[in-house]
Amino acid sequence: MATQDYQEDNTIPERPKVLIHRLPSFNLEFSCRLRTHFDLLDPLIDLPPADYFANVLALISVGPSPVTSDTLALLPSLQIVLGTSAGFDHIDLAECSRRGIAVTNAGTAFSEDVADYAVGLLIDVLRSISASDRYIRAGLWPIEGDYPLGFKLGCRRVGILGLGSIGSEIAKRLVPFGCRIAYTSRKEKPQFPFTFYENVYDLAANSDILIVCCSLTRETHHIVNKDVMAALGKDGVIINVGRGALVDEKQLVRFLMRGELGGAGLDVFDNEPYVPECLFELENVVLSPHVAAMTPESMEALQDVIFTNLTAFFSKQPLLSHVQND
Amino acid sequence: MATQDYQEDNTIPERPKVLIHRLPSFNLEFSCRLRTHFDLLDPLIDLPPADYFANVLALISVGPSPVTSDTLALLPSLQIVLGTSAGFDHIDLAECSRRGIAVTNAGTAFSEDVADYAVGLLIDVLRSISASDRYIRAGLWPIEGDYPLGFKLGCRRVGILGLGSIGSEIAKRLVPFGCRIAYTSRKEKPQFPFTFYENVYDLAANSDILIVCCSLTRETHHIVNKDVMAALGKDGVIINVGRGALVDEKQLVRFLMRGELGGAGLDVFDNEPYVPECLFELENVVLSPHVAAMTPESMEALQDVIFTNLTAFFSKQPLLSHVQND
Repeated sequence: MATQDYQEDNTIPERPKVLIHRLPSFNLEFSCRLRTHFDLLDPLIDLPPADYFANVLALISVGPSPVTSDTLALLPSLQIVLGTSAGFDHIDLAECSRRGIAVTNAGTAFSEDVADYAVGLLIDVLRSISASDRYIRAGLWPIEGDYPLGFKLGCRRVGILGLGSIGSEIAKRLVPFGCRIAYTSRKEKPQFPFTFYENVYDLAANSDILIVCCSLTRETHHIVNKDVMAALGKDGVIINVGRGALVDEKQLVRFLMRGELGGAGLDVFDNEPYVPECLFELENVVLSPHVAAMTPESMEALQDVIFTNLTAFFSKQPLLSHVQND
Repeated sequence: MATQDYQEDNTIPERPKVLIHRLPSFNLEFSCRLRTHFDLLDPLIDLPPADYFANVLALISVGPSPVTSDTLALLPSLQIVLGTSAGFDHIDLAECSRRGIAVTNAGTAFSEDVADYAVGLLIDVLRSISASDRYIRAGLWPIEGDYPLGFKLGCRRVGILGLGSIGSEIAKRLVPFGCRIAYTSRKEKPQFPFTFYENVYDLAANSDILIVCCSLTRETHHIVNKDVMAALGKDGVIINVGRGALVDEKQLVRFLMRGELGGAGLDVFDNEPYVPECLFELENVVLSPHVAAMTPESMEALQDVIFTNLTAFFSKQPLLSHVQND
């Protein structure tokens, strides 16, 4: 094991080695501060020295680049996996747990931007902003006349699936619009003044809008199934800024095509970058290429989270955004 | 003068006569309550009885249907004009004032919906929601890859031009996004905790985003001129949910085409339903067919405002949404 990267006095050694793990299609421009303090190696660019994989302690997994048990098996000394997303469904948490490997995520770096985007998608779906922009660009306003009315946001019952750092930011933003907020979460969170439902069915049955922003885990895979959609009802709107697989996409498409849901705002899909093409025809759906988290500001915040976690790890301090594998 | 519509004891007479004035392209489905309590006559549908125009006291002007001095000259007994918009630039206020005719507008019936829409347009422009929806529908995501980053809303300096009932609703909504709010208005409004600027130039020079939501009057015509746009700067964003003529549209188009503004979200235009077609090519502009105020809920609220104003007028009580002609 590469003990040279640990200091006995809990100070950080000079430029500890950190392996970058990424699919060729995912890149992250690491900050000067990260590059100055850590020796980042990206095998897609630089050849690793002999024994590098055997000794490296820390791995940054960029975006959805999968960290499987096979990946982990190549890195026998690994002690920490740093994800760069809020979600961690691409990391084999069970294997990490078995091997005592810590896992961190992006923490709250993306929470505000994702919350902003969720509100933007919601207003867009209810008030047909993207659809009426298309209407104008197609030259239809002078020909067809007034665009159909949208729906008021105020007084709508908004159900938030997952009142974590993103969900609570969404709720905070929607309060002054006059929305009535409820949620479901693993546990009730009495610090928030919102109605708690034990499960997503009861939440959907008592909501006009369902905002999906929980983590994707084995338990939450397809948590928004056809029964939830039926409970939400034919005027119901689904906003998904979590992960595609939180929603049963085939059923979602079926409900939307049949008019059994009122609309949807979707930033995430089952098989990105592929989006079910039949949705392209629908005016009550807003489609977005998994960008809710993405601003220059959130990218900077992410670098800070990675820096803080790496610094904490190499000086044996508590991690900033440790993912609980429970 | 048609005194039969006044009661000496301030009670409302039976079904007072109310004239509907509208362009053929603008219609409003009046509520059952309004039709029950008032005798509404729409000359585009029903022939007015003899002497009707000479005697009628109350006129509802639908949408932007112009109430000029010529219109007013046909109605010698007129005592009140009830507009159905928040704006009243289509009503000759000076002539009404000279003749002692009261003018009412939609009051706050539309404020929440317009504020919701302004926030929706703003998030859409900053985060490219409509543009990225187009990107997906054009099938470009799998071909061209990631969509360019948008900009974070939090910490942006938002300047509100007109902190009336709409502007203050916008401000309230933007606070939890972390925006820094400032405004200009005819007078400082110390009841709000936002920075006041004496004029729109200083406001623009100290803002990243300018939201235009004041009334269109002689004084505010083209209030957002090229100097204001230059002060806002090349990353600046203009959101207009007021009236087209508040902004010098030719200059706005020029600034946007040259990249001298960062973007715009426009619900209103100079010559609706005609939108400058060169804007159709721009990805940093969101175009909307004057629908910010329009939801079924706001239409209902409008009917309540008209009902309350008519009831007050015919019983000589204070009007709900009297437009001050100052």
